[in-house]
Amino acid sequence: MSAEIVMEKPGKTSPKDWRFTPHVAELEASIIREMLKFSSLPGVISFAGGLPAPEMFPLEEMKTSCANIIDRYGSDSMQYSLSMGITPLREAIAARANERGIKSVCANILVTSGAQQALEMVTRVFIDPGDVVITEYPTYVGAIQAFNYHRATYEYVSMDSDGMLVDQLEERIERCNPKLIYIVSTYQNPSGITMALPRRRKLVDIASRHNIPIIDDDPYSELRFEGDPITSLKALGGDIVISLGTFSKLLAPGLRIGWINGPSEIMPLFERVKQVSDLHANTFTQYMVLDFLERGLLDGHIDNIRADYSAKRDLMIKAIKEYFPQSVKITHPAGGLFLWCELPEGCDARELLDYAIEEKVTYVVGKAFHPDGSGENTFRLNFSNASHESIVEGIKRLGRVFGAHLPGGEMSQ
Amino acid sequence: MSAEIVMEKPGKTSPKDWRFTPHVAELEASIIREMLKFSSLPGVISFAGGLPAPEMFPLEEMKTSCANIIDRYGSDSMQYSLSMGITPLREAIAARANERGIKSVCANILVTSGAQQALEMVTRVFIDPGDVVITEYPTYVGAIQAFNYHRATYEYVSMDSDGMLVDQLEERIERCNPKLIYIVSTYQNPSGITMALPRRRKLVDIASRHNIPIIDDDPYSELRFEGDPITSLKALGGDIVISLGTFSKLLAPGLRIGWINGPSEIMPLFERVKQVSDLHANTFTQYMVLDFLERGLLDGHIDNIRADYSAKRDLMIKAIKEYFPQSVKITHPAGGLFLWCELPEGCDARELLDYAIEEKVTYVVGKAFHPDGSGENTFRLNFSNASHESIVEGIKRLGRVFGAHLPGGEMSQ
Repeated sequence: MSAEIVMEKPGKTSPKDWRFTPHVAELEASIIREMLKFSSLPGVISFAGGLPAPEMFPLEEMKTSCANIIDRYGSDSMQYSLSMGITPLREAIAARANERGIKSVCANILVTSGAQQALEMVTRVFIDPGDVVITEYPTYVGAIQAFNYHRATYEYVSMDSDGMLVDQLEERIERCNPKLIYIVSTYQNPSGITMALPRRRKLVDIASRHNIPIIDDDPYSELRFEGDPITSLKALGGDIVISLGTFSKLLAPGLRIGWINGPSEIMPLFERVKQVSDLHANTFTQYMVLDFLERGLLDGHIDNIRADYSAKRDLMIKAIKEYFPQSVKITHPAGGLFLWCELPEGCDARELLDYAIEEKVTYVVGKAFHPDGSGENTFRLNFSNASHESIVEGIKRLGRVFGAHLPGGEMSQ
Repeated sequence: MSAEIVMEKPGKTSPKDWRFTPHVAELEASIIREMLKFSSLPGVISFAGGLPAPEMFPLEEMKTSCANIIDRYGSDSMQYSLSMGITPLREAIAARANERGIKSVCANILVTSGAQQALEMVTRVFIDPGDVVITEYPTYVGAIQAFNYHRATYEYVSMDSDGMLVDQLEERIERCNPKLIYIVSTYQNPSGITMALPRRRKLVDIASRHNIPIIDDDPYSELRFEGDPITSLKALGGDIVISLGTFSKLLAPGLRIGWINGPSEIMPLFERVKQVSDLHANTFTQYMVLDFLERGLLDGHIDNIRADYSAKRDLMIKAIKEYFPQSVKITHPAGGLFLWCELPEGCDARELLDYAIEEKVTYVVGKAFHPDGSGENTFRLNFSNASHESIVEGIKRLGRVFGAHLPGGEMSQ
C-alpha cells in the first residue's frame, strides 16, 4: 500500500471517538478562563479575572534583571535545572518566610509554575476519588477545579466576617475523616474575608490534634491595605500547615513562579510529582525573580501595589455606594484583589451577567465558588486590574443593569 | 487555649503519617534527575542527562529578545495569558509545522511547559489505571514515568535499525486494545534509531484503520546530521498522530516551551487539563521564543547546533573505537543527542556504573528505558552536553572501567 493511499484514505481516523479518560472528557472549562477571552474584547470592562494591575509591572527593572542574569549566570539561566527549583531562589523564599515568623529552610521549599500548579500538586499527592477535603464556603474556584479533577468529596464549613467557623470543624473531621483542610486564610478569594487570629489558633490546634494537614493558599497576605499583619497559619501551626505562595500578585503572573512550603520530610513526594509533570519550574524566570529579590526591590514594589490597590478598592466601594441599589451588599476587604457581592435572596447573578455582558462589563458569578453550585445571588468583583476610570464606568454600567433588573432596583437609582 | 501552647505542643503533627495517594507515595525518583545532581559535582564528566550544549545557547540574542519584548509587548509580556498559549507563538509553531509538510493551524497547537508536560498531559487525557499503551522497546524514560504514574499497562514492540517492527503491531492492537501508540520516531531517545519511511507509512495505516492515536514524541528531528529529512509521522498520518514538540533542544530547555500538535476537535480537552494544571505556559518565555523566531534566527541557530552535535557524535564514536573493548556495541545515530551501547550478554551496566562513578564519569543504565526492568547490559551516552575535551577524557575513563571489569575487556586495551 502506497503512502498516497494512506494519506487520502486515512482509515477510520476519528479523534472524537478516541477513548479519553472519563474525568477529563467531563471536565468543564473554567468560567473564569472563558470569561478572560470575552474580557479581552475591545470596550469590555472586566471585573472578572484576578489579574494584577498591568501598569504596576516593573518593566524596566525586569529588563535590567534579564540582562543581569544572562551576564551573571550565563547558560545556567537557560539550562535544565533541579526539580525542587534553583537553590538561591528557594533560599530567598525561605528567608522571606522566616521574616514573617515561618521557620523555613531551603528543604521546605519547592518552586512551582505558579500557585495553581502548587494547588494541583497538593491535590495529586493527597486526593484519590472520593477522598474528602474540607473547604471554606465559598472557596477558591481554582481549588474547586483541582479537587473536582481528582474527584474529591467536599465538606463545607461556613464563614462569617472572621473567617471559617472553626467551632464546626471538629465534628466534621470526626464524621468524614478528611484528607485535607483547604483554606485561603487571608483576604480570601472570593470573599475578601480574613480569618481572625483566635480562629487561626483554634484551627491549627484542631488540625494538629487530628494530624490533618491544612493547606493554606496564601497569594494575597502581603497585599495588606490597613491594620497590622496577622500571624500566618504556618507561623502558628508549623508542620501541620502546607503553605502555597506565588509571585503572581507581588511581581507578575506571566513569570509563573510560585512555591510550596511544607514539611521537609514529605517534600520528596512533591519533587517526584514535579519531575513527572514538567521536570522543573522555568529556569529563566526563576532567575529573574531572584535578581529582583537580590536587588532588594520587592518590598518597595509591594508597598506601591498596596497603595494602588487600596485606592482602587476605595474607589470601587465609593462607586458602588453611588450607583448600585442598596439591596446589593458588599464585603469591605482589608487587602487582596476582590470584593464579594450579595444580591437580594432569589436574584440570579448568572441571569444578570447576560445583561452585564450586553453593557460590556463582566464579573464572576458566585456559583463558581460553591462546589455544590449554590450561591446564585452572589458574585465577585476584582478591583486590581481595571483603571480608575474603568472602575467608575464599569460600576456605573453594573448599576444600570441592577437598577433595571433587581426588584426595587430602580427606586435607588 | 493560647497560641504559645499550640506552637509548643502541636498535637500529633506527623507528616509521615499523612495519607498520601498510594501511586504518589510509591513514585520513584527519576534515575536521570537523580543522576543530574551527581553530575553537577566538580570533576564529574556526565554523559547521563539529555542536556543541550550550554555553549550553544544564544545568550546575547536572548538578551536582545528580552528587551525587545518588554519594549514591544509591555505588560502583556508578564500578565496572565490564555491556556492554549499566546496566539502569535501558536501561529508561528503551526507555520513551522506546515514547512515540514504537517498541515496545521493555530487551533491545532497548545503551548506546554516543555515536552515532558505535553507527554504527561497526553497521558492524563488517555490513560486510566490498567489502560494499555504500546511503546517501542526500549522507550523514553520520561514517558515511562508518566505512564507509570497513571498506572498504564505496557505492550512492547521491538525495534531493529529501521525502528519499531510494525509487522508485529496489528496483532498487538487486536489482542490488547491499546489507548495509545507511543513512538519517538526520529533519533529515538535512548537508542538513536530513526524509523524508516516504509515503516512510518505502515504504522499510520494500521493506526488509522484501528483509530488508535499515535503519540509521536518529536524533540530531535530537526537535529539531523546527515541524509535528507524524513517525512514525519504527522505529515503522513494527519489527525491520527498527536505530535509533541519542544524548543528545549532547538533553543534552550530552561525556557520550558513545548507544544502539542493535535486534531483541533480534541484540543479543548488539553486546554482544560492545562487550566487545571498550571493555567498556562510561561508568558514571558513564550514571547522570548516568539521574538527569536520572528527575527528569523532559529533556522541558522539549528544549523549551528547540528554542526556542533554532529562533530561531537563523531568524536565520541572515534574515542569509543579507541578506548572501549570491542565487545561493547554502539549505534550510529544520524541525529539527536544519544548513543546507545550494548555490553556483552550477562554484563550488568548498573554494577559497572558504580565503578564509573568512582572514575567520575556517568551514563544512564538501559534498565531506565525498559518498563519491565530488563536491558541490564545496555546503557545510554549523551554526546551533546560535554565539551570535546571531556568527551575524550570521559570515554577514556569508561574504557578503563570496561577494560578492567568486562570479560576479556583488558585484551582490547
